Amino acid sequence: MKKNAFYAQSGGVTSVINATASALILEAKKHKNIGKIYAGKDGILGALNEDLIDTSKESISVIESLKSRPGGAFGSCRFKLKDFEANEKEYKRLIEVFRAHNIGYFFYNGGNDSADTAFKVSQISKKLNYPINCIAIPKTVDNDLVLTDCCPGFGSAAKYIATSILEASLDVQSMSATSTKVFILEVMGRHAGWMAAASSLARNNKGDAPHIILLPEVAFDQKNFLNLVKDTVEKNGYCVIVVSEGLKNKKNAFLSESSTRDAFGHAQLGGVAPFIANLITDKLKLKNHWAVSDYLQRSARHIASKTDLDQAMEVGIKAIQYAVNGMNGVMPVIVRGKGKKYSWKIEPAPLAKIANLEKKLPKSYISKNGMNVTPKAVEYLRPLIQGESFPVFKNGIPEIKELKLIKVKKKLKPWA
Amino acid sequence: MKKNAFYAQSGGVTSVINATASALILEAKKHKNIGKIYAGKDGILGALNEDLIDTSKESISVIESLKSRPGGAFGSCRFKLKDFEANEKEYKRLIEVFRAHNIGYFFYNGGNDSADTAFKVSQISKKLNYPINCIAIPKTVDNDLVLTDCCPGFGSAAKYIATSILEASLDVQSMSATSTKVFILEVMGRHAGWMAAASSLARNNKGDAPHIILLPEVAFDQKNFLNLVKDTVEKNGYCVIVVSEGLKNKKNAFLSESSTRDAFGHAQLGGVAPFIANLITDKLKLKNHWAVSDYLQRSARHIASKTDLDQAMEVGIKAIQYAVNGMNGVMPVIVRGKGKKYSWKIEPAPLAKIANLEKKLPKSYISKNGMNVTPKAVEYLRPLIQGESFPVFKNGIPEIKELKLIKVKKKLKPWA
Repeated sequence: MKKNAFYAQSGGVTSVINATASALILEAKKHKNIGKIYAGKDGILGALNEDLIDTSKESISVIESLKSRPGGAFGSCRFKLKDFEANEKEYKRLIEVFRAHNIGYFFYNGGNDSADTAFKVSQISKKLNYPINCIAIPKTVDNDLVLTDCCPGFGSAAKYIATSILEASLDVQSMSATSTKVFILEVMGRHAGWMAAASSLARNNKGDAPHIILLPEVAFDQKNFLNLVKDTVEKNGYCVIVVSEGLKNKKNAFLSESSTRDAFGHAQLGGVAPFIANLITDKLKLKNHWAVSDYLQRSARHIASKTDLDQAMEVGIKAIQYAVNGMNGVMPVIVRGKGKKYSWKIEPAPLAKIANLEKKLPKSYISKNGMNVTPKAVEYLRPLIQGESFPVFKNGIPEIKELKLIKVKKKLKPWA
Repeated sequence: MKKNAFYAQSGGVTSVINATASALILEAKKHKNIGKIYAGKDGILGALNEDLIDTSKESISVIESLKSRPGGAFGSCRFKLKDFEANEKEYKRLIEVFRAHNIGYFFYNGGNDSADTAFKVSQISKKLNYPINCIAIPKTVDNDLVLTDCCPGFGSAAKYIATSILEASLDVQSMSATSTKVFILEVMGRHAGWMAAASSLARNNKGDAPHIILLPEVAFDQKNFLNLVKDTVEKNGYCVIVVSEGLKNKKNAFLSESSTRDAFGHAQLGGVAPFIANLITDKLKLKNHWAVSDYLQRSARHIASKTDLDQAMEVGIKAIQYAVNGMNGVMPVIVRGKGKKYSWKIEPAPLAKIANLEKKLPKSYISKNGMNVTPKAVEYLRPLIQGESFPVFKNGIPEIKELKLIKVKKKLKPWA
């Protein structure tokens, strides 16, 4: 029987999450069991508020152009459904909306929180006797989902970071004789150091920048760090440092937070890069510059990894195929081939084993001194940034085709 | 008579300064009057220290590859020659080195400080009776040189900023329902707001991000600013702000500096973006994110403007032609055609009229409220970011070919 589908984007967006949406919508058109794809306005909120965007009103060329549009084209949100027992109302509302719009497929495109929500929704078939096929689709620049070899969105952020560090290092190197000696780039990664680790891909030869990588997995050792900066500048003439926003001190407190309070507890300026920069100025008297990439790194579609883009699209395609084949409560995950040459395929994995778990950098990926990554890490990371897929440029900037974003007519009372 | 040439990179580098070097070196090979091109190790310091890199030892393919290498391939420096009267020694040393290596051409690739140095050197022909043809070649992401329509390096930084703002805006927009409402990007520009202004090129339609552009030419008006942020978030759901590092308060002090001292005068974290972010958190209680591009924006060769790249190469070619035609004390500048369709050509301009002068944003480019740019500014800026020239990627990152950097054998005593 033909059922409509609900697709929602969740949590922090990536430069390729819309590529997943694009592939999913186009794949759905091939399956007779699937009617329309409704995209949630602002993620799962779109379901609760009955704000459903009818993607069938968009032209095929616009849907195809989503492949090169960063951000979340339908809106994303940070909203975690409570446990079924704690808030049955939310689930009942979801079913009310699904029933009103004949929705039998639920696709939730997000990270580990979203996998949790998708897992809960997948259980309402039994608990509330509403038949639904619920598939979570992986997406996170954090690369911290378990069971999958990598996460769509990460490879592109990694390519952005590696390219940026390579470029900035050439800049610093050329100025170091009379000017800046130390350059610091702060990258995302609150709990896991995958993005910081990706900066190692900027290296072609031993000794190349970045010289120091500060990870959230390793407590910051100020003395050793400053010694290494000093030694590196003495040896190379300059030092390039990449630091995770989630770097912690030995008391397990975020350095960026310790720097956001003054002696009276008043809020001060945040950011771990300026904190590190300040430290180097104070203790080593070395001229330094710092940058914070923030959203730029996760939205840099212009330097997306082709490998990442392909995977982002393939998980969208597989999500549809799993759903029409009757699967529920699974996620299409990326499985790396065993061979020497990088290969990958998509397989279903149970959400129960993914939800809420976090994959940090394994110890074997972290160098002995705790301020770098091992060749094993590079071996894992390198394939993920291979290939380019530049967007179409128009008038000097990436072309972004406008969506109509036509909403389905509401049938229900507003949700409180 | 055949003479060798000395080429030096000066001041903050750009993503296309090596493209100028590449074109200059290749053009020189066509002229029988020019022997070898010696590049200064770390700019003018290379001349003073007799650290001369023999570019003839590099393969043609490596010289060609400089077109896509950011940073300063031979090293740059921040070093301004004193006036002739104040420090005759430096000039005498230059001549000593030039004479020892049969150098009759001097090419100085930099901004307004460098134009000043080049101008001084151009006068030693007369003052110290040493015949030299001295040509300054424009380069600066600041776009603040006078007489030239634009400066090589700026167009590529502008394209990076416009693209980054476009991408980050799509990100913020998609999250704004439940998360970040305000995004702030800090860009370079200590005295002139050209780079901040370039963010306006991210717009396709009226009302598109960036919504606010804070320029160093306009004193920061906190009250009006906060009102505009508030209004923009109320109207759009989110607000994107671009701020020049050189933003000043009404007392003409840099905001970034005011934020680097605590109540006791101790050094604190710098950066104007975190300052603005803090203000928005404190006064408006709006969730915000901020980024600081720093060196990333001026070294982002991966997103260079083809127009900028072409101009960077053409000024290198013209510098050689001017020199062999006997010119001295001039700069090849970019002259914009009068027609509706953008066109440009290179013409010589006297260094005496360029040195030490700074071109700020004209009033007609700044909006009435002082927090945006006018359509006239966009009209000026738009052609400068047209076209792409992606580098060759190898192993997932831009390919950087190694230079041999073989130095000419020293003939003189070390310079103190």
